Amino acid sequence: MQRKINFNAGPARLPLEVLEEAAKAVLEYKDTGMSILELPHRSKEFLDIINESEALVKELCGLSDDYEVLWLQGGGRLQFCMIPMNFLSDRDAAGYIDSGHWSEEALEYAVHYGDVQILESSKETNYDRLPDWPTDIPEQLAYVHITTNNTIFGTQWHNIPGTSSPLIADMSSDIFSRSHDYSKYSLFYAAVQKNLGTPGTALVVVRKDMFKRRARLVPPMLNYGAQAEQHSILNTANVFGVYTSLLMLRWIKAKGINVIERENAQKAKLLYDAIDSSKLFFPHVKVKEHRSLMNVCFTAINPEVEKAFHALCGQHSITGIKGHRSVGGFRASLYNAVSLTDVEFLVRVMKEFEATTKG
Amino acid sequence: MQRKINFNAGPARLPLEVLEEAAKAVLEYKDTGMSILELPHRSKEFLDIINESEALVKELCGLSDDYEVLWLQGGGRLQFCMIPMNFLSDRDAAGYIDSGHWSEEALEYAVHYGDVQILESSKETNYDRLPDWPTDIPEQLAYVHITTNNTIFGTQWHNIPGTSSPLIADMSSDIFSRSHDYSKYSLFYAAVQKNLGTPGTALVVVRKDMFKRRARLVPPMLNYGAQAEQHSILNTANVFGVYTSLLMLRWIKAKGINVIERENAQKAKLLYDAIDSSKLFFPHVKVKEHRSLMNVCFTAINPEVEKAFHALCGQHSITGIKGHRSVGGFRASLYNAVSLTDVEFLVRVMKEFEATTKG
Repeated sequence: MQRKINFNAGPARLPLEVLEEAAKAVLEYKDTGMSILELPHRSKEFLDIINESEALVKELCGLSDDYEVLWLQGGGRLQFCMIPMNFLSDRDAAGYIDSGHWSEEALEYAVHYGDVQILESSKETNYDRLPDWPTDIPEQLAYVHITTNNTIFGTQWHNIPGTSSPLIADMSSDIFSRSHDYSKYSLFYAAVQKNLGTPGTALVVVRKDMFKRRARLVPPMLNYGAQAEQHSILNTANVFGVYTSLLMLRWIKAKGINVIERENAQKAKLLYDAIDSSKLFFPHVKVKEHRSLMNVCFTAINPEVEKAFHALCGQHSITGIKGHRSVGGFRASLYNAVSLTDVEFLVRVMKEFEATTKG
Repeated sequence: MQRKINFNAGPARLPLEVLEEAAKAVLEYKDTGMSILELPHRSKEFLDIINESEALVKELCGLSDDYEVLWLQGGGRLQFCMIPMNFLSDRDAAGYIDSGHWSEEALEYAVHYGDVQILESSKETNYDRLPDWPTDIPEQLAYVHITTNNTIFGTQWHNIPGTSSPLIADMSSDIFSRSHDYSKYSLFYAAVQKNLGTPGTALVVVRKDMFKRRARLVPPMLNYGAQAEQHSILNTANVFGVYTSLLMLRWIKAKGINVIERENAQKAKLLYDAIDSSKLFFPHVKVKEHRSLMNVCFTAINPEVEKAFHALCGQHSITGIKGHRSVGGFRASLYNAVSLTDVEFLVRVMKEFEATTKG
């Protein structure tokens, strides 16, 4: 098989060794005489998977036992529901910093449960930059919600001040991509299909003191405290999904967050430099210090050039490079499993294209 | 590899050919140059998977386009939440027929949203039989909820009268196990990890007129109407999970529901006959017409015999036969992928055990 050079925003490229290990487990998990797809969620083998994955998440995040690690179903959007359901009563307000589509959707979900204050937004400029960090966050907010990386628009918070209210972060598209102080969050979550696995699972990490906050009665399945008490197996867990995320965690640990961070910076610099020096391609995000190292969004000088470059990428087995409809053009997602070689190849194709194309 | 003879109640045994096909797709899906774990949920390939699986569900259930087929995350328990959230307002009442643990848990979830009437229950006799079908179901219930097969206690409804209020059924453990009139339900659902796939996906089939009923404002992720509008990709779908269920649907169709039904009846008769004629083993469900063809629950004459038979099963690579703690003893789940040969082997081991064991 020739593997595509895959820049998809998510579901995203996974390391070949993780795929091979996952495929092996589908045939037989260890020497259990059964497939991982058949493995009981209350078996010793799955408890080992849960325990190892929890320990690795805490280790990679540098977190103590003050935090609970949960593997839940329903992706990021179920978190958009569960966060206000659990923490925002109809007498309280939550603050949302609106830095892109996913921030906005998260806050639209929250208005079902209580009052929402948009603390800052960069919507007016089609999210081509981060909003300013709000200077006068009201006291007594139920929580403040941010999106650390904006997949669609290609911005990323590189400096996140603390807040007096509990800080909650959607880290779906940049978790484990850099060294980071995770202890500033009361809760952070990630749909795993970017840096951490295959769709169907979300990682949620909650500081235990949050369980005391109860905005309303919530049935166990949607209740963080109840899920934590049952260590992610309140219901039949997505066994294969959690296992795939464990394989990713092992891969991340073996490589090392520092190495990953350095490579991610190299990959992004290479591509942004090519775009900044191009006469055909233009970055969506001009403010360099707001740029995402994960999702590089750019447009072409005109629709013909755009079409021609898409076609050329196709000829070179480059896939997943189409920009989201709200930005257009191109988006190359440079998640952990995308190699420097992949990005070098893309840049080479861009330069060859430039040498032979008139704007 | 020697495959275990797997009688687990769920996650359950899957056909070897399905596992082999799934493992192949984890390495590369068709000739896409990527793994099914990386496949975009908005790709043509995944839309084909969704479309084929929807068509197969309707075909196997004999349903028209009046119904929508949804693949959701969160298993059966998220359905316990979504059903009352969408259909039971705080001014209405829903009726629940309590035939076992899962019925009871479903109704406990519903009380968060409105009034719940237990129409009948067999809890008093530890669910060793079905309750009577209620004779005087009040008019104007928001819906009536039943569990068609009770996994833990081994009972199953073989005759389900219609209701004037919309009938909603949890069919997690007997869907596609027999020919059945699915058109009597306004909604039915199944966590797929028994007859239909691997944990992480639930099949929900809803009659479209239900979308008009709105008990309250519900955010899109938890709203059946919004999910239906987006054809199961309102959010990033569990691509691999849905694909595995499609493989199961193809397997079911190739075998034929009639053949499956006949084999399931044979398998269950073989095992119940062995238990009924035994001096060491006793059925949990004495009322024969209430017995489940999917989950056969039985106990042993005393704890020593129980322990000895568990040990013997282990020696013969028989697994997943321990009864649920609320019944004790043994439970053999005879889902579609468990073969007649598997059951014949179990019965042979039981008879050899009986010949050499004193009660």
